[in-house]
Amino acid sequence: MKNKINIAVVGLGQIGNYLMNELISKKKDIELKTGKKINLVAVSAKNPNKKRKFKINRKIFFRNPLNIIKTKKIDILFEAIGKSDGISKKIVVNSLKNKIHVITPNKALISKHGDYLSKLAEINKVNLEFEASVAGGIPILKTIKESLATNKIHKILGILNGTTNYILTEMEKTKKSFSDVLKKAQALGYAEPGKPTLDLNGYDAFAKIRILSALAFNNKISKYKCLMEGIENIDSKDIEITNQLNYRIKLLGITELINNKLFERVHPCLVKKDTYIGNVNGVMNAVITHGSPVGESILQGEGAGAGPTSSALMSDLLSILRGNIKYSFGIPDFKRKKINAYNSNNYLNSMYLRIEVKDKPGVLSQITNILAKRNISVERLIQIPDHKKKTASIVIITHKSKEIDVQSCLKNFRLNKNILKRPTLIRLL
Amino acid sequence: MKNKINIAVVGLGQIGNYLMNELISKKKDIELKTGKKINLVAVSAKNPNKKRKFKINRKIFFRNPLNIIKTKKIDILFEAIGKSDGISKKIVVNSLKNKIHVITPNKALISKHGDYLSKLAEINKVNLEFEASVAGGIPILKTIKESLATNKIHKILGILNGTTNYILTEMEKTKKSFSDVLKKAQALGYAEPGKPTLDLNGYDAFAKIRILSALAFNNKISKYKCLMEGIENIDSKDIEITNQLNYRIKLLGITELINNKLFERVHPCLVKKDTYIGNVNGVMNAVITHGSPVGESILQGEGAGAGPTSSALMSDLLSILRGNIKYSFGIPDFKRKKINAYNSNNYLNSMYLRIEVKDKPGVLSQITNILAKRNISVERLIQIPDHKKKTASIVIITHKSKEIDVQSCLKNFRLNKNILKRPTLIRLL
Repeated sequence: MKNKINIAVVGLGQIGNYLMNELISKKKDIELKTGKKINLVAVSAKNPNKKRKFKINRKIFFRNPLNIIKTKKIDILFEAIGKSDGISKKIVVNSLKNKIHVITPNKALISKHGDYLSKLAEINKVNLEFEASVAGGIPILKTIKESLATNKIHKILGILNGTTNYILTEMEKTKKSFSDVLKKAQALGYAEPGKPTLDLNGYDAFAKIRILSALAFNNKISKYKCLMEGIENIDSKDIEITNQLNYRIKLLGITELINNKLFERVHPCLVKKDTYIGNVNGVMNAVITHGSPVGESILQGEGAGAGPTSSALMSDLLSILRGNIKYSFGIPDFKRKKINAYNSNNYLNSMYLRIEVKDKPGVLSQITNILAKRNISVERLIQIPDHKKKTASIVIITHKSKEIDVQSCLKNFRLNKNILKRPTLIRLL
Repeated sequence: MKNKINIAVVGLGQIGNYLMNELISKKKDIELKTGKKINLVAVSAKNPNKKRKFKINRKIFFRNPLNIIKTKKIDILFEAIGKSDGISKKIVVNSLKNKIHVITPNKALISKHGDYLSKLAEINKVNLEFEASVAGGIPILKTIKESLATNKIHKILGILNGTTNYILTEMEKTKKSFSDVLKKAQALGYAEPGKPTLDLNGYDAFAKIRILSALAFNNKISKYKCLMEGIENIDSKDIEITNQLNYRIKLLGITELINNKLFERVHPCLVKKDTYIGNVNGVMNAVITHGSPVGESILQGEGAGAGPTSSALMSDLLSILRGNIKYSFGIPDFKRKKINAYNSNNYLNSMYLRIEVKDKPGVLSQITNILAKRNISVERLIQIPDHKKKTASIVIITHKSKEIDVQSCLKNFRLNKNILKRPTLIRLL
């Protein structure tokens, strides 16, 4: 690699903006640590006139990022537009084909097209780096790829979405409803405006879990339709009851190998209050890796925000500048295998169920009968009456039960007219 | 770097042994991830006949490790003897001078001679890597050097010694005395036999703190005589009382810049039970880094043991094989500066004091008078009488007080005949 490195930044949203400042203010530091001089030669954004912290040099501004590659000699390009397809994908593909290293925080892009893009990088002998795509400032990808490189990893679990973790923490602290807390989160900038569906329904965490699996287990990014549930249906009642039972509710992403089959999932979990993961609160992210010989390894930090994300982008930049060329997913593309999916129907676990019922004789026995028919045995049952409404909440924690049996019970419950709405199901960790 | 890499392992204790197995069993994995073939061409230990998990090939065995360099062409050498001087230092110096990369878990060596050795590596254009020297399997050095490379770090604190953390955790759990728990720790292999002074008195953690400072603040390894206290004087009484006050006692290593001056210290701390660091129990290590823009970043994992240590050694190996050549302390030697020491006398903090006194009138007022004279104001005072012995424990938590004033009180207490022994001082976090 030569000594003067030409850099392009595409996308000047929150992250692109912060990154620009970092690139400008840390030039000397970068030279000291890598021996390379960086030179910002092209910037692209939708609107050149938007108010920004820094002045955009019109001479290096491009409205269409694809023109950057056509007209400038670029060594490293940052893609900070977001979105899995369209111009984001195009600029990354074009860059790699032109032997330009690419750095991106775009989890949607990587979890959807990562296999293709990493192969393209490999063929063109450049880097495709995406540390910032999972858990923001936490260096979990580098840790798996490099620090735990010779470990056999069998499970990774984590809190991978700060928005949902903030909401769950606040619901517990303030005893307010989901929608009230969501509004507060939006006001504070912790949740996107409107309905931030991809955060709330678990999709965001799921994209990250797929990237983590691919790195930890050396498999191609899975395309399986998997167990994915969000937190939209968590009621403050659930928070209150589980709290009394000494649990907290956390939206976890989990990936593991069970009998050499891949089981990826994202759903709310009941975790004990006195565990490590039960105490990761607010917007914090955390990732727990189980490997051999290293044992249990925990990384925690700010999982989002322009600052932590830029920290990860800059770390990728320095990695490339130091000449640390390596495979995007740790090993050559042809060695990455497809791992069969674990059948989640067989998943054996304790479950929390909250069932809202009419408070009249015989209802409880109807419920316990349905459970008994599916071989689901009850470890704990609490009935909380609401005398005004003449209803009751029946809360059940089951012994270990098969997912398929629990789902079949839920279907059955839906046919029962004494059950007032779709029961809440939360799996225990 | 050529494709076939010759490796030597010097020292076949617990760590060297485990490492040998890893090197032998993971050859293919290493080749896949780095494109390099490793070849174990020399091994050295005191006793070739000792029972080991693997057979030692007599043809590659050396009783004197210095002969390895004289007779074999080595590319990378593992030093796993331990000790800061003597043969450990000699073999590392000779290797570097002969352009051999060195990987070591030896914190005593690095914290004492790291400046000299890293300069030697730089001059000879080879790597000196020591990830395993701090916090075992936790990739804290790589995280500071690479993942947080462009962050401004202002403070690092952590639980850096598993032995002492295990002892403190067990004392709380079992309510047993320090010496009983130490015996158990030794039986379980968590503490060395005899009197493991360097663990207990804080020295081990201190060596690690010095290495962390050098990396985080780009300074030469400090030689300052600093605040260092161990856990030998923590009594089960302290554990019990602080527990009731909702605290736990943890031996912390802390390094920070205060007004651009370096403040390194290791001592027991009172930490709130509901904090993250208050819940890192048993033999676990944890490191919290405060940086900008990344924010608070936490790494936790097994800090010792042959498995986690080997995981770190192997990560260094792969780093070298990938050609990730870099400065051992992140920047060129001539740029590493000397940072002046912060005067710990000025350190302002709340303190916990337990003073054992004769239970007779006037004693309490003598104590409070001494405190008042030094401007130390009491936030909380508890007197616990022992009617049988006609003594009492006076427990005080002070408002923020200057270290020098507290030390001067302690001196004064020693002159008072009503005070039965040296009071216990524990700083609040």
